[in-house]
Amino acid sequence: MRLKDLAEHLGLSQTTVSRALNGYPEVNEATRRRVSDAADALGYRPNASALRLATGRAGAIGLVLRGADELGPHMSEFLSGVGSHMAAQEIDVLVATVASHAEELAAYRRLAASQKVDAVILHSPTTRDERAELLLELKIPFVLHGRTEIGHPVAWLDIDNAGALERATSHLLDLGHRRIALLNGLRGQTFAEHREQGYCAAFADRGLTPDRGLMANGVFTDEAAFRTAQAMLARRPAPTAFLAGSMMTALGVFRAIRQAGLELGTDVSMIAHDDVFPYLNADNMYPTMSTTRSPIRQAGARIADLITQVLAGKPLEEVHELWPVELVLRESSTRVRE
Amino acid sequence: MRLKDLAEHLGLSQTTVSRALNGYPEVNEATRRRVSDAADALGYRPNASALRLATGRAGAIGLVLRGADELGPHMSEFLSGVGSHMAAQEIDVLVATVASHAEELAAYRRLAASQKVDAVILHSPTTRDERAELLLELKIPFVLHGRTEIGHPVAWLDIDNAGALERATSHLLDLGHRRIALLNGLRGQTFAEHREQGYCAAFADRGLTPDRGLMANGVFTDEAAFRTAQAMLARRPAPTAFLAGSMMTALGVFRAIRQAGLELGTDVSMIAHDDVFPYLNADNMYPTMSTTRSPIRQAGARIADLITQVLAGKPLEEVHELWPVELVLRESSTRVRE
Repeated sequence: MRLKDLAEHLGLSQTTVSRALNGYPEVNEATRRRVSDAADALGYRPNASALRLATGRAGAIGLVLRGADELGPHMSEFLSGVGSHMAAQEIDVLVATVASHAEELAAYRRLAASQKVDAVILHSPTTRDERAELLLELKIPFVLHGRTEIGHPVAWLDIDNAGALERATSHLLDLGHRRIALLNGLRGQTFAEHREQGYCAAFADRGLTPDRGLMANGVFTDEAAFRTAQAMLARRPAPTAFLAGSMMTALGVFRAIRQAGLELGTDVSMIAHDDVFPYLNADNMYPTMSTTRSPIRQAGARIADLITQVLAGKPLEEVHELWPVELVLRESSTRVRE
Repeated sequence: MRLKDLAEHLGLSQTTVSRALNGYPEVNEATRRRVSDAADALGYRPNASALRLATGRAGAIGLVLRGADELGPHMSEFLSGVGSHMAAQEIDVLVATVASHAEELAAYRRLAASQKVDAVILHSPTTRDERAELLLELKIPFVLHGRTEIGHPVAWLDIDNAGALERATSHLLDLGHRRIALLNGLRGQTFAEHREQGYCAAFADRGLTPDRGLMANGVFTDEAAFRTAQAMLARRPAPTAFLAGSMMTALGVFRAIRQAGLELGTDVSMIAHDDVFPYLNADNMYPTMSTTRSPIRQAGARIADLITQVLAGKPLEEVHELWPVELVLRESSTRVRE
């Protein structure tokens, strides 16, 4: 039984039947009841296509991932948060995976044309994000996880990366460290630029200048961090402290420290950024890891909530949330060795 | 411009216009060309709802997660594989998160009614999986990651869990271990039952009986594994070897071994099951970890491929793949200490 069949049976247009079933006010009560009774009697269940043509709502939020690798530990924690919020509302998350930046833009165009999603979560923004501009042009509502500067208001939620790195760097400087390695994200990514600003500000506050050779940009994997930290530890003078961009980065740095015959928390200090993965607990490490801490799962849940608000008509200018980041001091950060 | 508007402009039915645009053979060439030219001239782009009403294809594969926690490291690696295959075909993955078993069944019914997906990936099956029976009843095509016994043919891909555990257990028995702890998945899950069968078979082959007190069932987190291993190591006699169900389990066992003042690879041995996470490499651990190894990402990519084949009409009886599992010996498994 399709919408068309039900409409023919009733002698009404498909649009009227669909609106009746979806409780639109322009359909009078008698008609609504007649349609509803016939639907029950004939066992008609509206399908999503019919529903969507009538209501203009897809019941899904889109997320485009560039490369299968992007669904790593950070994204899956984030998506867990999104899912936990959406589940209660029977809203699904449509994940499209693409292979390149060009394909990514094409995927947003495809989502817009197909009307498969009501809104999009835009993630990992660059300082001037072309995708955000495209989404505005395509008129797809979206909430940005992070920030970008594109000259139009957008809805966003971000953590205070600059503040977090300024505090962590200041703490290491107070402990007497001067050669502090920064293992940061890729250049151009807003969060990495903000972290670098915070790091440099802490040095500048004390009239100091950081060593550019200790500022690295790369992906947040154990392997990349291991190679970078290994190369840095081979320099003379070597760094006495590390700021690791993620817990995966911290694992690689830890391995390089151990392989160099050094001990974390005595010979070398480290503070890592912790997005709070249930399976990788900073408190359970040996030594326990000092962190800048902000649960990425909570950010996902909140962004899902903000999307609901944007779809309900909340002005984009009012959807700006900057979350503070905790500095949690544990055993891995200690006074510099003389 | 909607399908309806285009149809009115041409004086044709929406069905004819839709079929013309989608290349259905029952529309003659002259009409197809007239529709196509009008669509171009008027800037009409078919939306997914219209396309789907015409073609019966949603262009998406469904995946239902029970609880946000289910999108952990295993599922995200698996989904990366699915996504890498689907990307090339512009097929999306629709993720629905639910809070309970009852809601999970309701979600499949909802997906069936809404026609939002063409097929479903069913994962983490129990030995007699109610969800598989429901999907057959709802006539949603699906491929199972794992196996179940429900008396109807289903399409599945699984790894040889029984064989993997039999080999790993045999190896530890050959090294002289007799008190071998098995940290397994939850009871009733098919893979956990298969692993237990393999473990018991290796003992039985040698006329030995395993100690039931060393067989634990739980979730694969660092924390759960730590507590279980800690309790087992406090027993007298204590286990001399561990079979860890996942790399997350291995991290927790490793921590318990260290906290008991013991050394992995000398005092205690361990073989872990490795689904191959890019950020947690068995080769990079100290000591390096012996593993039973099967990349879960490849399983995801292959299941996506099998779904395409099932949708193309391949009989379910022909879609059965049992993948062998490698045993990779490294430093964590050594001869039992006298």
